[in-house]
Amino acid sequence: MASTDKPEVENVAAAPEKGAVPPAAPPPELKSETNTPTSYLAVAEVVLRVLLFATTVTAVVVMVTSKQTEWIPDRLPPFRIRNSSRFTDSPAFVYFVAALSVAGLYSIISTLLSILALLKPGNWKHLVSHFVVIDVLLLGIVASATGVAGGVAYIGLKGNSHSRWLKICNIYDTFCAHVASATAVALVASIVLVLLILLSVFTLSRRSLK
Amino acid sequence: MASTDKPEVENVAAAPEKGAVPPAAPPPELKSETNTPTSYLAVAEVVLRVLLFATTVTAVVVMVTSKQTEWIPDRLPPFRIRNSSRFTDSPAFVYFVAALSVAGLYSIISTLLSILALLKPGNWKHLVSHFVVIDVLLLGIVASATGVAGGVAYIGLKGNSHSRWLKICNIYDTFCAHVASATAVALVASIVLVLLILLSVFTLSRRSLK
Repeated sequence: MASTDKPEVENVAAAPEKGAVPPAAPPPELKSETNTPTSYLAVAEVVLRVLLFATTVTAVVVMVTSKQTEWIPDRLPPFRIRNSSRFTDSPAFVYFVAALSVAGLYSIISTLLSILALLKPGNWKHLVSHFVVIDVLLLGIVASATGVAGGVAYIGLKGNSHSRWLKICNIYDTFCAHVASATAVALVASIVLVLLILLSVFTLSRRSLK
Repeated sequence: MASTDKPEVENVAAAPEKGAVPPAAPPPELKSETNTPTSYLAVAEVVLRVLLFATTVTAVVVMVTSKQTEWIPDRLPPFRIRNSSRFTDSPAFVYFVAALSVAGLYSIISTLLSILALLKPGNWKHLVSHFVVIDVLLLGIVASATGVAGGVAYIGLKGNSHSRWLKICNIYDTFCAHVASATAVALVASIVLVLLILLSVFTLSRRSLK
C-alpha cells in the first residue's frame, strides 16, 4: 500500500548491477521510517513497552508488599501464636518476583531504546528489531511465573483435600489479595508481551511484502 | 524446492505496471524457494513441529498415567486407609493436561501443513507463515502450564512448613516421578515453541532483507 512513490528494496539492491549508482537515492530503511503506518507501529511499540514496564513493576511491588502478620491457633486450641506470611515463604513467589523484576528491568532499557529509535531512526531501529528475541524468551519466563504463582495461590485459596493441604487465605486474607492481584497484573504483562511479539512479526512481514 | 514450473502471485500482480513483461526474469520469491538455506529453514520447521508433537503427547500421556494407590496412615496410628493419587486431584494438573493436549492437537495440524508447504510451496507456504501467531499464544499457555505443574509438584516434593502443607512425594513416589517427568517434557515443549517462533522471525527478517 502507498508504495508507488518509492523504489523497491530489491530494485535498490539490483541497481549497482546496472553500472551507474544513483547518488541521490536515500537508504531504503530510512524511507520506510517516514511512512506513516510504520511510525504508528513504532509508537504502538513504545506504548506497549511502557505498559510492560508499568505492569511488571506493579506486580513486583504488590507481591513484595504482601507481608501479613496474624494470630493463628496453635496445636492446642486455647493457645495462639503470632505468625506472619510473606512472599519469601514460598519458592514459587520468589521465582515470580525474580522473573517479573528481570522483565521490568528489560522493559526500562527497551522502552528507552524504542523511544530513541522513534526519534532517530536508522541504527537504533535495527537494534530495536532484535528485541523480539528477548521478548519471546521473556514471554516464556513471565508466563511460567504467572502460572506458578497462580497455582500456589489457588492451593492457598481452596486448599487440596486429597493432599490434606489446608487453605490459608481464610487467615491471611490481605496476603492472598496481594498475591492474587500480583498474579492478575502479571497476566496482563504476559498479554502485553504477546502483543509486542505479534507487533514485531507484523512489522517484519509488512517489510518483507514491500 | 521443485517449484520452478509455476509463477509467483506477487510478480503476476506487479507485472502489468511495468508494461512489457520480461519473460526471462525469474520471480524474486521463487528464487528464495530454490535457495537452499530457505529449504533448510522449512525442513527445520517441520522437524521442530514433529518434536513439539512428540513432547506434548509424551507429557500428556505421562501425566494421565500417573495414578498411584497406596496405604496411608489414618488419623489414629494403627489404622491405615487405602488412598490413590491421580492428576485429577489437582486443578493445576488438569490445566496442564488441557493445555498440552491443545498444543498436541495443534502440532498435528501444523506439522501436516508444514510438510505440505515443503512439498508444494506457494499458497501453503503463505498459510504456514501465519502459524507464528498461534505459536506465540501457545507458548504462553504451555509455559504457564509448565510453571503451574512445577509449582504444585514442588510443594508435593518439599512441602511448605509456613503453610503447614506436608510433602506427599514420600508416599506417592511413582505419582511424583510421573508429574516431574511430565513437567520436564513440557519444559522441552516450551523451548521447542520458542525455537519455532524464533525460526519464523528469522525467516521473515531474511525475507525482508532481500
